[in-house]
Amino acid sequence: MNTLETINKRRSIRKFTDKALSQQQIETLLKAAMLAPTARNAQEWDFIVVRDRAVLNKLAKAHPYAQMLSTADCAIIVCGNTHRETAAGYWPGDCGAASQNILLAATDMGLGSVWLGVYPTPERMNAVGAVIGLPEHVKPFNIIALGYPDEKKEDVDRFDPAKVHYEKW
Amino acid sequence: MNTLETINKRRSIRKFTDKALSQQQIETLLKAAMLAPTARNAQEWDFIVVRDRAVLNKLAKAHPYAQMLSTADCAIIVCGNTHRETAAGYWPGDCGAASQNILLAATDMGLGSVWLGVYPTPERMNAVGAVIGLPEHVKPFNIIALGYPDEKKEDVDRFDPAKVHYEKW
Repeated sequence: MNTLETINKRRSIRKFTDKALSQQQIETLLKAAMLAPTARNAQEWDFIVVRDRAVLNKLAKAHPYAQMLSTADCAIIVCGNTHRETAAGYWPGDCGAASQNILLAATDMGLGSVWLGVYPTPERMNAVGAVIGLPEHVKPFNIIALGYPDEKKEDVDRFDPAKVHYEKW
Repeated sequence: MNTLETINKRRSIRKFTDKALSQQQIETLLKAAMLAPTARNAQEWDFIVVRDRAVLNKLAKAHPYAQMLSTADCAIIVCGNTHRETAAGYWPGDCGAASQNILLAATDMGLGSVWLGVYPTPERMNAVGAVIGLPEHVKPFNIIALGYPDEKKEDVDRFDPAKVHYEKW
């Protein structure tokens, strides 16, 4: 799909069919993620891919808005690895860019996705980290639920000229 | 351009020709930015568009790696507006997603771009905020330099299977 069209078509999809993703699709999503820019090109991220139904069900309970994980085929937990930082504190923004690449690649491939925020809420970070055994230096940034969409959403236009300022605030 | 191709072609471009962007191109970039997802759909961002050469030159001096702004046609400063937050601390990740949309839309349109990290480095935030008169509650996240590219970069493959973990860390 054309890039601007994909950016426009990406919506948060929370209902999925039972059709499974292929391993190749998952690798395409991860390759897209790792093509995002990072501060000083640190690439200070890790990705936990969860497909085991029992683990997905545990994640669904570890996050207050993650019920859809019990029907998602796959979850990717995008993490910031502070041991790989070369500039402190840039990992959340970098993980945001990588996450957006995953969402756009998924949309382009006909998949549905939703970004479930984890960082910086301590309860969510602790609960998600416990499910997947993250060490202290690896921070769970979000959970991206993935699957074939079982809902359709209309396009939206969120452009707000009041949020655009020229030359200065 | 196809979405996956755009994700692949996006590279940090720091050399620009003197060809100017149209106002319509800039609005397309901003529309793309505002189509990114945000925590609780807060859309807690603002965008400062700088085209005045004197302001661009000031920004080039306000950031240690921003010399290319003195030849860029345009800079977009992506900001998080803490007065519009509905979940505290999610704005850097959300601004990261919006920034990636700008970079991808720019790549798709044949433009070059580079993301210059500002948040969370206090000196950069203070210096950039002073140039464009940001109030305390509006946080400069990055500066995106934009223009027609005057350099070509090869594709890279940053996929690192060691950063992919299945089911658990």
